[in-house]
Amino acid sequence: MLICEVIGHVWATKKEASLSGLKMMVVRELTPDYKPTERTFVAADVVGAGIGEWVLTVGGSTARHAFGKEELAADAAIVGIIDKVEM
Amino acid sequence: MLICEVIGHVWATKKEASLSGLKMMVVRELTPDYKPTERTFVAADVVGAGIGEWVLTVGGSTARHAFGKEELAADAAIVGIIDKVEM
Amino acid sequence: MLICEVIGHVWATKKEASLSGLKMMVVRELTPDYKPTERTFVAADVVGAGIGEWVLTVGGSTARHAFGKEELAADAAIVGIIDKVEM
Amino acid sequence: MLICEVIGHVWATKKEASLSGLKMMVVRELTPDYKPTERTFVAADVVGAGIGEWVLTVGGSTARHAFGKEELAADAAIVGIIDKVEM
Amino acid sequence: MLICEVIGHVWATKKEASLSGLKMMVVRELTPDYKPTERTFVAADVVGAGIGEWVLTVGGSTARHAFGKEELAADAAIVGIIDKVEM
Repeated sequence: MLICEVIGHVWATKKEASLSGLKMMVVRELTPDYKPTERTFVAADVVGAGIGEWVLTVGGSTARHAFGKEELAADAAIVGIIDKVEM
Repeated sequence: MLICEVIGHVWATKKEASLSGLKMMVVRELTPDYKPTERTFVAADVVGAGIGEWVLTVGGSTARHAFGKEELAADAAIVGIIDKVEM
Repeated sequence: MLICEVIGHVWATKKEASLSGLKMMVVRELTPDYKPTERTFVAADVVGAGIGEWVLTVGGSTARHAFGKEELAADAAIVGIIDKVEM
Repeated sequence: MLICEVIGHVWATKKEASLSGLKMMVVRELTPDYKPTERTFVAADVVGAGIGEWVLTVGGSTARHAFGKEELAADAAIVGIIDKVEM
Repeated sequence: MLICEVIGHVWATKKEASLSGLKMMVVRELTPDYKPTERTFVAADVVGAGIGEWVLTVGGSTARHAFGKEELAADAAIVGIIDKVEM
């Protein structure tokens, strides 16, 4: 899992049918002490995260399992909202 | 998912049988504010995207699921045409 | 598998249901001679690792298999505590 | 999928049984305008590609599906010979 | 697959049960002309490779298939000993 900040969202009217109704958020990977990195990607949201929140993301086939839909055309998902990173 | 721009397409007469009839597009990854990156790859097109359009792509086993064909020999797919990225 | 050091943990009250009760640790990848790298990520813990310990991690679908739960929303797991790296 | 050039092949007498009889080619990733990159890897060949040819490769679980053998111990495959990249 | 050199091995008494009895080797990725790179990782050994040998490795779900054990908690495996890379 990666520590990310939600920084935006993506609108796409024309898309693969399994993505209908999913919120697709732009996230930026953070270091464990919350510093922004250059890496950004788009993740489907399972937990209702808002812009500016710190979140946990998963990638690959795990993203489909996060939605319980093996046929989902998403390869990244937000699966938790971070309260705190303790170091 | 990645935000990409469609920049070309690939012609391959001799190919693995499951790829027959698929459009294989060259895409370039963009930053969330549409700046081009160095990363390019080839993605099979599910949604009818044209050169110059901004698209969402998926990779890995998710690409096969985007086509509903587990036996497909593609590891990247265009699954949406982006209307807008809101930041 | 990667050689990592456990450097922290993540608290997330609101999360995908399959993650309930899992310890989510922040790990830093090490070189084989234990030098820290820039790469960090979050891994679910199978073996009871503590802060400062050297561990083996797995990624992708293998992380779900480490827990024997195909439906788990985790894409990285700590699967061993390292006694020694012999070179 | 990646655009690659076939640059060599690998001989390995002692190998996992499922790899017997497979041609294992060394490939170098190219940019879409055919410039060589630093990235090289070994891919099993499905389509009969020769040294110097431009090919499409797939990675991960998709490589096994390209051979129709889920139990194959290969994580990269050549699945097409490129006639032309149109930009 | 990657061309690697076996450079060490990892001892881990406390580990996920499916890893019992597996040899876990530290490998360094090589270029096709055998030059060492910075990339190292740990791979489970299927073929009986020794320190200093050149090997082929696979990653991801393919590593589990190399052992014929879908439930194995390993995401990298040595699947062949390289006799020669011909360029």
